[in-house]
Parts: sequence; structure tokens; C-alpha cells
Amino acid sequence: MGLFITLEGIEGAGKSTLRTSLAELCNAKEREVVVTREPGATPLGQHLRTLLLDPSLPAITATAELLLFSADRAQHVEEVIKPALARNAIVICDRYVHSTLAYQGYGRGLALEHLRQLTEITTGGLMPDLVLLLDLEPSVGLTRARERERRASGSFKTLQQSAASGSVPEWNRFEQEELAFHTRVRDGFRALAANDSRILLLDAAQSPAAVLAAAQKAVLERM
Amino acid sequence: MGLFITLEGIEGAGKSTLRTSLAELCNAKEREVVVTREPGATPLGQHLRTLLLDPSLPAITATAELLLFSADRAQHVEEVIKPALARNAIVICDRYVHSTLAYQGYGRGLALEHLRQLTEITTGGLMPDLVLLLDLEPSVGLTRARERERRASGSFKTLQQSAASGSVPEWNRFEQEELAFHTRVRDGFRALAANDSRILLLDAAQSPAAVLAAAQKAVLERM
Repeated sequence: MGLFITLEGIEGAGKSTLRTSLAELCNAKEREVVVTREPGATPLGQHLRTLLLDPSLPAITATAELLLFSADRAQHVEEVIKPALARNAIVICDRYVHSTLAYQGYGRGLALEHLRQLTEITTGGLMPDLVLLLDLEPSVGLTRARERERRASGSFKTLQQSAASGSVPEWNRFEQEELAFHTRVRDGFRALAANDSRILLLDAAQSPAAVLAAAQKAVLERM
Repeated sequence: MGLFITLEGIEGAGKSTLRTSLAELCNAKEREVVVTREPGATPLGQHLRTLLLDPSLPAITATAELLLFSADRAQHVEEVIKPALARNAIVICDRYVHSTLAYQGYGRGLALEHLRQLTEITTGGLMPDLVLLLDLEPSVGLTRARERERRASGSFKTLQQSAASGSVPEWNRFEQEELAFHTRVRDGFRALAANDSRILLLDAAQSPAAVLAAAQKAVLERM
């Protein structure tokens, strides 16, 4: 019932752009489309997203962070995703379980076996039909993400300037993570794709139009 | 290496009273004593405790609730409990993993196998040396808990009046749960005690002095 598509990839890989374009495509097919994201799609999730992205809160441990993302997901699955799929809608979700495996597993070094157990508990086994993985060099993605931030806030530092100053309070906690972390995450996403036929790896260094064309083809095949 | 003691039992069983008395006992032995509780012992936990006990938030799913308690615990273990035990302190913690098994497992019907996996992820395997389980008829415990609430707030309804009116906004979400739920929780605690020699079941219908005497004996044996 329905079609469950998730968008995955590092910061700045182009998930937001692709999400908007895909939603327009699906709408044109006269299917109900639910565009959503993690974390923060429910009232509970909004509170948790604020906690997770707040640079002023004392350090959250890697395990506590994992469990907060999981609580957001459990609520999201029951309140938003499952009801939408039951209505035969197409659900397009920006980040889902593969972000947990890539960021908390490959990025922060938590045991993948634990993460898979936790994913089962959190989602009741609900997995996407198609994962669109936007693959990109982390240095390119971070620069894009920070340019987006600059446009939103009116202030800007380069990655190097920020690293030298030691703090970048205008960016959220995840964007502050060092390049090495994002490289582990990217490599993790690629490792997951190598072992899961539901994951379609898309070269996000291409133009947005080329990325969209490849994504569209995969989505239309599954509709 | 310290000594890790947890207090468990239903609402109104007398955990707060016992906690205070035990802390005085341990202080008199010139040991550092850390008295703490779940949820809410850390800055992150304070935010989560507010979310968990807020009767105005839309329904939190059983799984999301479980994961929020777990996030609170993961932060608590790393930030408070492990450092205290490493200083050779006595840690007295009001609620810990057995509350999760009793409330979310026996009470809400989540799979015990999942809860044990999650506990391992959350705590890294840190279990208490001694669990003091205050066992009491739920109707007695709830009446005690509600009398305490009345003293704090100046307003009071009996359990029957509250059930008839359908809402008791002056009480927190857990105290609003029906008697049947608390009976499942109490039976769950007793089932856990039957299979775990670290759990000492104390009859909380006795006088506070008699409960304290039995608890003291067990604690002194382990000091």
C-alpha cells in the first residue's frame, strides 16, 4: 500500500531540491504525496529537533543522541508515515534509518548491530521501498550547506576560518562537525548502498536536472 | 568502584522517603553519596522529563516514550552515574532499568526481548548492585501519591471522582493511568524480582521505619 521513498546523503548533497522536484512529479501523476523529514515532523519531533540542533545545550552523548533521533522516528512512523501509506499515498521522507546507520554508526562509531536492533524496535520493521542516496564529496557538500546558511543569516565564514576561530555559533551542531566525520558518514552511506538493492546511488556532483532525471526514472518504475 | 543502588516500585510506594533515609545512613558512614533519579537528572533530562510528564502534549506513542526514557538514561549514565561510581561513591537512583521493564514491558505490552536489547544499548551493560523494590497494592500507592499531590497543590479528588470526571489536569500523565495499568506494572516488578537475586522485594505496606530497617540491612551488607 503506498510507496515509501527516502532521501539520504550528507549535508549539502541536494536533498531539499530533489524533494521538491519529486513532489511536483508525483503530484502531476494525481497521487497523494506526503513530503516529510526527520527529525521534527511531529509536535513531539519539533521539541526534539530543537534539542538536537541546539549548540548551546551541554554535550549530548552519542547514545543519547541516537535515542532522541529514534524517539522522533517512532512517533513519526506511527503518526505520519504509516497512516499515509495506508491511504496509498507516496511518502517522500528526507532522512530515515540509513542516516542513523551512516551518522551514528559509521560517523560516531556506534555498533551497527545495535543500530539495526534499535531500528527494528523504532520502526516495527517499516523500511523504504526506494532509497535515493545523493553521493557527494563532503568538502563540496559542506561548502554548499554553508553558503545556504550564509544566504539565510547574512553572515559567512569559510570552513578554514571557522576551524581557526574554533566556534561557529551561527551554524547548527551537525554542520560544525569536522570534515573527517562527514567523510566517514559518506563512506558509510556508500557501504550501505553496496549491500542493499533498495538503495539507488546518485552522483550529486551532476546538475540538479541530471540528478532529478535519474531519480524520476527510479520512482516512475516503482509507481 | 562504588556501590550502585536503585529504588523501584509503583507510584506512592515510598521511594522518596526511603531515598532520603538511606542517603542519611550512607552519609553517616562517611562515604560520598550521590542521590539521583530518572527521568530528569541532567540538563537534557530536564527537558525530556518536561516532555514526558506534560499532559498537554499530543499522545506520545509507547515506543517513542520508551526511547525518550532511554535517551534520558543514556545521558544520565555517562554524565552522572559512571563518574560517581568511578569516585567510589554510593549512588542511590530513584528508578532505573527495572522501571522500563515494568512500565513499558509489563504495563504497556512492549516486547521484553526488545527492552533488554535497548537497555544494553542505553546503559552499556551497567546494572545496579542492589535493587530495592518497594512492593505495594496499586490502590494504596495511588491514594498515597494523590494525597501527596493534594498537599502540594491544595486541590484533591478521590480516584473515583477523578475517573468519573474523565480528566485530572492537576496530575501528571503517569498518575492519570488507570488502576489496571498499575496492577500490571506491580505484577511485572514482582515477576522480575522472582528471577533476579539483585532485587530485594520489600513490603511497602509496613511502616516507613520497618521498610528502612530492611533496606539498611541489605545496603550495609554490600558496603
